[in-house]
Amino acid sequence: MKVNSGFQHQENPTNDRSFIKATGGGAYKFSDLFKEKLGISLEKEDEMDCLVTGANFLLKAVNHEAFTYLNGQKEFVQIDHNDLYPYLLVNIGSGVGMVKVDGDGKFERVSGTSVGGGTFWGLGKLLTKCQSFDELLELSHRGNNRVVDMLVGDIYGGMDYSKIGLSSTAIASSFGRAISNNNELDDYKPEDVSRSLLRMISNNIGQISYLNALRFGLKRIFFGGFFIRGQSYTMDTISVAVHFWSKGEAKAMFLRHEGFLGALGAFMSYERHSLDDLMINQSVQIPVDASCGTDTNYNPLERDLNETESMQCRVYQA
Amino acid sequence: MKVNSGFQHQENPTNDRSFIKATGGGAYKFSDLFKEKLGISLEKEDEMDCLVTGANFLLKAVNHEAFTYLNGQKEFVQIDHNDLYPYLLVNIGSGVGMVKVDGDGKFERVSGTSVGGGTFWGLGKLLTKCQSFDELLELSHRGNNRVVDMLVGDIYGGMDYSKIGLSSTAIASSFGRAISNNNELDDYKPEDVSRSLLRMISNNIGQISYLNALRFGLKRIFFGGFFIRGQSYTMDTISVAVHFWSKGEAKAMFLRHEGFLGALGAFMSYERHSLDDLMINQSVQIPVDASCGTDTNYNPLERDLNETESMQCRVYQA
Repeated sequence: MKVNSGFQHQENPTNDRSFIKATGGGAYKFSDLFKEKLGISLEKEDEMDCLVTGANFLLKAVNHEAFTYLNGQKEFVQIDHNDLYPYLLVNIGSGVGMVKVDGDGKFERVSGTSVGGGTFWGLGKLLTKCQSFDELLELSHRGNNRVVDMLVGDIYGGMDYSKIGLSSTAIASSFGRAISNNNELDDYKPEDVSRSLLRMISNNIGQISYLNALRFGLKRIFFGGFFIRGQSYTMDTISVAVHFWSKGEAKAMFLRHEGFLGALGAFMSYERHSLDDLMINQSVQIPVDASCGTDTNYNPLERDLNETESMQCRVYQA
Repeated sequence: MKVNSGFQHQENPTNDRSFIKATGGGAYKFSDLFKEKLGISLEKEDEMDCLVTGANFLLKAVNHEAFTYLNGQKEFVQIDHNDLYPYLLVNIGSGVGMVKVDGDGKFERVSGTSVGGGTFWGLGKLLTKCQSFDELLELSHRGNNRVVDMLVGDIYGGMDYSKIGLSSTAIASSFGRAISNNNELDDYKPEDVSRSLLRMISNNIGQISYLNALRFGLKRIFFGGFFIRGQSYTMDTISVAVHFWSKGEAKAMFLRHEGFLGALGAFMSYERHSLDDLMINQSVQIPVDASCGTDTNYNPLERDLNETESMQCRVYQA
């Protein structure tokens, strides 16, 4: 769920109540809880609307908001506002949504996949007994997917299948090696299973994203959502996937404030806050995104923004 | 591995030996075994070459070779030889290869995915303790993926996300429901896990195939390989996926002899058997495909071919 940090009393004398804007699945899931415990109503905003509004705002308002990631290196990219659209926004939450963005408020969900962060965590939980998403992700950094995956070389006697441009170390079949021996789940290290899972899912998202960008002639793909959260290995895997499938022609891009797109968009849906107001004030604090609250190490404000870029939002209270 | 039923002595007086043509990973894997136990050398043929040669031959030589599959119904399609190319051939083995076919001997591997039959069986084996691919597939017929998958309605309080055309019963996140409760692997029925896995993989293959067909302007997609083997539920899931992603504009197609493409292609690589010879004789018996040997119920010759279509190959022996 994405909520913004301010809350507001609706100016209705017959039904005076506090409410905050919220979006995402959590706006439905936690609606009763907010009402019961805090007496606050969640005013639900459309998730896609909010994501796109948030992304457009950040890409225009924040210097060097976008970056590419390869071999452990971030490379910040300044995008000309006049050359921003159209782009593909890939939001990796439990599932994956792919949105073609043509301008402010102009967008279309063009594709997606059910193989997303929920698949990583759901399958990972069943396979490794990890207790949290972060634990599973941490495990993957230490794993070796070759133990679980069938590589091209495993099929062709250690050789490349060079005729079709596949090296012997390319993954031919994710989890395919589990077929060919008598090992059971307990015989595999959780870190190897986790790594294989992360590579399978990141590769797949990178491939489907690239194919959609190609389909609509979009030259930029921005990846965001809970699955990424600035995790270097995840970004690296997605970048490699886009590089591989596009034969080096496309690059995955990430946003410094990717965990806040929905919350920003929800915040901006207050009628009295137009994008223009925000741009003029230049004093906006990024609202809280509940989905990032679990990761105490993650604070992009601390990490990336300098003083001149800091943002502050106004709190409305009747 | 795909082998053909005949074998041959090479006409070389200084190195007289029996050999048979073979293709696929098994041509490497079982090479030593064939030599040791039977004194037969496997002469390896390129897998893609063989698959394409086999598919082209069948689509031209056999009446009503291709069919669509929806709601349990096969619909045979007669394809005009002059309107056959270009098409996309999707071969689902351990991994998935996607080949754009432009004519006899004219083809290019344009894409693929590591999420294939090996992933279904590998992950399935780890998750369910099934002892065979067929057992896992059989289980999936009785399962309910809603127990394991997160549906759109689970996220949006039981409602459709109609604005973007997603019904409440669409899968939002494969295995995503495993996140939201404290169940462990043993708490899930193997049939539900198997069904979710099959739907995830079939959906994904259908989606990537469709995107590639779109990319190259290919109006037909033929699916074949070990993963399918005439299994109705598998074909149905792939058909539904292509229908869903193409918004009804494309149809998945299957081949009656899809288990034999590679073997046929290997057979046809004997120099003295040109396609033209075979077409003139009209008396060719389809060679044995080792990859289908495990399924005793699967005999497409028995199932689909009538007497006038039966084929017989010549055996060469010095």
